[in-house]
Amino acid sequence: MTTNIIMKFCFIVCFLLVFVELSSSKWIKPRRLNIINHSTNRIRDDRCRQFRIFIQKVDHFGFLNMDTYQQRYTLNTDYWESGRPIFFYAGNEGDIDLFCENTGFMWDIAPIFNAMVVFAEHRYYGTSLPYGNASYSNPEYTRYLTSGQALADYAYLLDYIRGSIKGAEQSPVVVFGGSYGGMLAAYFRMKYPHVVVGAHAASAPILQMTTPCELFSRIVTQDFRLESSQCVDIVRSSWDAINRIGSNPTGLERLTNLFKLCRPLKTVDELKDWLLDMYGNIAMVDYPYPTSFLADLPAFPARAFCANVTSSSLETENDDEDIVRRIVKGTNVFFNYTGHTECFDTGSQGSPSLGDLGWSYQSCTEFVMPMCSDGVNDMFEKQSWDFQAFSDACYAQWKIRPRFEWPYIEFGGKNITDFRYYSNIAFTNGNLDPWSSGGLVTTVTPSLPAIYITGGAHHLDLRAANPADPPSVLQARQQIVALIEKWIS
Amino acid sequence: MTTNIIMKFCFIVCFLLVFVELSSSKWIKPRRLNIINHSTNRIRDDRCRQFRIFIQKVDHFGFLNMDTYQQRYTLNTDYWESGRPIFFYAGNEGDIDLFCENTGFMWDIAPIFNAMVVFAEHRYYGTSLPYGNASYSNPEYTRYLTSGQALADYAYLLDYIRGSIKGAEQSPVVVFGGSYGGMLAAYFRMKYPHVVVGAHAASAPILQMTTPCELFSRIVTQDFRLESSQCVDIVRSSWDAINRIGSNPTGLERLTNLFKLCRPLKTVDELKDWLLDMYGNIAMVDYPYPTSFLADLPAFPARAFCANVTSSSLETENDDEDIVRRIVKGTNVFFNYTGHTECFDTGSQGSPSLGDLGWSYQSCTEFVMPMCSDGVNDMFEKQSWDFQAFSDACYAQWKIRPRFEWPYIEFGGKNITDFRYYSNIAFTNGNLDPWSSGGLVTTVTPSLPAIYITGGAHHLDLRAANPADPPSVLQARQQIVALIEKWIS
Repeated sequence: MTTNIIMKFCFIVCFLLVFVELSSSKWIKPRRLNIINHSTNRIRDDRCRQFRIFIQKVDHFGFLNMDTYQQRYTLNTDYWESGRPIFFYAGNEGDIDLFCENTGFMWDIAPIFNAMVVFAEHRYYGTSLPYGNASYSNPEYTRYLTSGQALADYAYLLDYIRGSIKGAEQSPVVVFGGSYGGMLAAYFRMKYPHVVVGAHAASAPILQMTTPCELFSRIVTQDFRLESSQCVDIVRSSWDAINRIGSNPTGLERLTNLFKLCRPLKTVDELKDWLLDMYGNIAMVDYPYPTSFLADLPAFPARAFCANVTSSSLETENDDEDIVRRIVKGTNVFFNYTGHTECFDTGSQGSPSLGDLGWSYQSCTEFVMPMCSDGVNDMFEKQSWDFQAFSDACYAQWKIRPRFEWPYIEFGGKNITDFRYYSNIAFTNGNLDPWSSGGLVTTVTPSLPAIYITGGAHHLDLRAANPADPPSVLQARQQIVALIEKWIS
Repeated sequence: MTTNIIMKFCFIVCFLLVFVELSSSKWIKPRRLNIINHSTNRIRDDRCRQFRIFIQKVDHFGFLNMDTYQQRYTLNTDYWESGRPIFFYAGNEGDIDLFCENTGFMWDIAPIFNAMVVFAEHRYYGTSLPYGNASYSNPEYTRYLTSGQALADYAYLLDYIRGSIKGAEQSPVVVFGGSYGGMLAAYFRMKYPHVVVGAHAASAPILQMTTPCELFSRIVTQDFRLESSQCVDIVRSSWDAINRIGSNPTGLERLTNLFKLCRPLKTVDELKDWLLDMYGNIAMVDYPYPTSFLADLPAFPARAFCANVTSSSLETENDDEDIVRRIVKGTNVFFNYTGHTECFDTGSQGSPSLGDLGWSYQSCTEFVMPMCSDGVNDMFEKQSWDFQAFSDACYAQWKIRPRFEWPYIEFGGKNITDFRYYSNIAFTNGNLDPWSSGGLVTTVTPSLPAIYITGGAHHLDLRAANPADPPSVLQARQQIVALIEKWIS
């Protein structure tokens, strides 16, 4: 299986950049919240492939553009009884079937509630493309990619479902979502409480736009430190080692060989970006059991990474080659766990799939999530956040500029007490998840419980039950079930 | 004083149509919720003319259009103390100084709360024109006239005010509004509870888009019936009398003379539309004391109208001329109370001022308010509601079509229980106000009290205190004061 294939289908975050070459001292890349990748071991669920189509207006917030598009969704009534709830997944940045297949919690509890299960695809992702393959080709076509438009899509779709399925008119709707989907779930309840009675917002970084930029890097680092502080020290020292090797006349060739890259490196930054992505990814999918999403990963991949990195004693204290070799061994956990990959493609993560493009646009408009690192409290190179450079890059690619303040104007969050008037949203966050840096981890008001999952990585609670689940996630799921009972009563 | 001047400045609703000649059997006209007119007796309030400017984005819901415009607002700190509330009027379809001058309640209670008083002008009205005088000239310029954009304007403006005035950062905001402004006040609290702690939504017909179309006509009729059932009978019979006279070869000339019109009538419908407007207007401003808004009116203008109409005994039971002469005498109450008007201009209400244009556009997009009458339970001709004809007329004028469902998708109201998750909105309605047909007059949940004002016309409660105020409006205002105390605590 090539890295290309591995990277195409899974369920994690990475740090990709598709459009600009970066200075190593400025962080202007958007991080993707999820990339939906399939591994070859993926188990397909037929319930998630029985697609339906709903005709949506392209522009809900104006009346001049009367274009429509076909929104894709799935709807399952296997467990549903008349008048019983609708469980609605607020699709985020990817194909809806993959969210459907990877949100086992909804399927696990649907029989308890005799619930209908609906997964709605987010506009501009999957096949729900307002202007087909041209959707990203022209600023006039791309302009309708916003969270607000997506939420209005969901409100219209639910109005249609409740109006067209006998017995569903009075069915209360509970919305679920993970990551950006969790943000949408929260926002949906906040803006449309007349449509949804409650929301399970898993690993939703709704404060990421205003949170200190260094937090994400610190949580990634903490995950590895939990396994081995020596591991963290090695990673931290690896950047200089890579820089020094790369600065030699044949350094890039040397690094290409050491990392078994398929194509010769053009810059050191290319390699470092690839590694940055990997560390973030490992932290996000640091699940307590083997997963087959981003390649085939062992349980606790951070542990496996650190075991590889620290397995041999240091040859010489400052031997750059030794440090780099250790990192190479670590990367095998993530990119080559099965040992079948012959070479790695640092560019593969950056291939401009529609999903990548969509999140690039969204992080250039509404969801500017500042990132930085100090190299002291984290294991990365010192990188400051440069909004202007970020904005310039957005303009170069999309002919738009971000409005960083929009999320807190529209949804609140400049101060967390802003949320006190909202209700019936369960915010779940795991301590291993770097995106918890932007999560609502404080209970602002009793009807917005912040549920913290010790030992939880990125929206572990939304995954299907697993024997290796830690007690904290079992408790969280029980809490959610009790809350849903309350919301729908 | 000419009718033109009289009609330009006041605070009532009328039934104007600016763009199509209508069949008399189909009701496809938008009704205006307010027209702001000045009488010559208007008392100007300097506090309402100290304008400020805030730079707003033209498009909040997309990122491609980066144009800005200058929004006008007033801000008064005469009574304000640091940390104390901000009273914010959500401007509706007209110049903001006139709302400021005619919302005495806010000024009356500001000293009680040591409140800052802010009036924000609605985009596309007054001088807050996104594309200057060209704002209505091109569908591309007009497309940003929506309630959603206006609410986002208000959220941005308040963020600026609270961020820039020392001591205002923690000031709770209470939003006020009457008529469409009342809808905006309610919507503002519904969609932005992180910005406003509560709303006083006066005479806000938030259900008018889904309410039975005949209700408005029935309430107008009821107001006149409260004064005299004979009066109602005469008005009801006047339509046929006008039609019969109008169908004679010299009938239009005769009607022109009878009604002392400045310009010869071209159709009978022109006259009937003018009269329809007048009846709606009289019902709306049926205040218990003389007002000087839409011309100089006596207390209880419906009573005065009916007194004139019924003052003489009927000459012959079916004398069309006699009936029409009675209506003419009635119109003098409304159009010529001071006796100085030499002739009346049926076209003056239809002059396409920017305010008229704005509401025409808004009722052609979001706020389709179906109107009809049956001629039995009301005093009007039988007119059905024809959505398709209405939509076609909208397309002919604006190159857009309405989405009648949008308000209930976006704000709820398909069923009134939709509102049960919203909070801290006081809905006030008066029994004399025809717009109460679309008001929330049932308390859905304790935090959305529906306050009914017996003897109240259109947002009487928002007006300054007056010795002739009925006890019900005094009680309503006391309730609002108590609610504000609760909301801000």
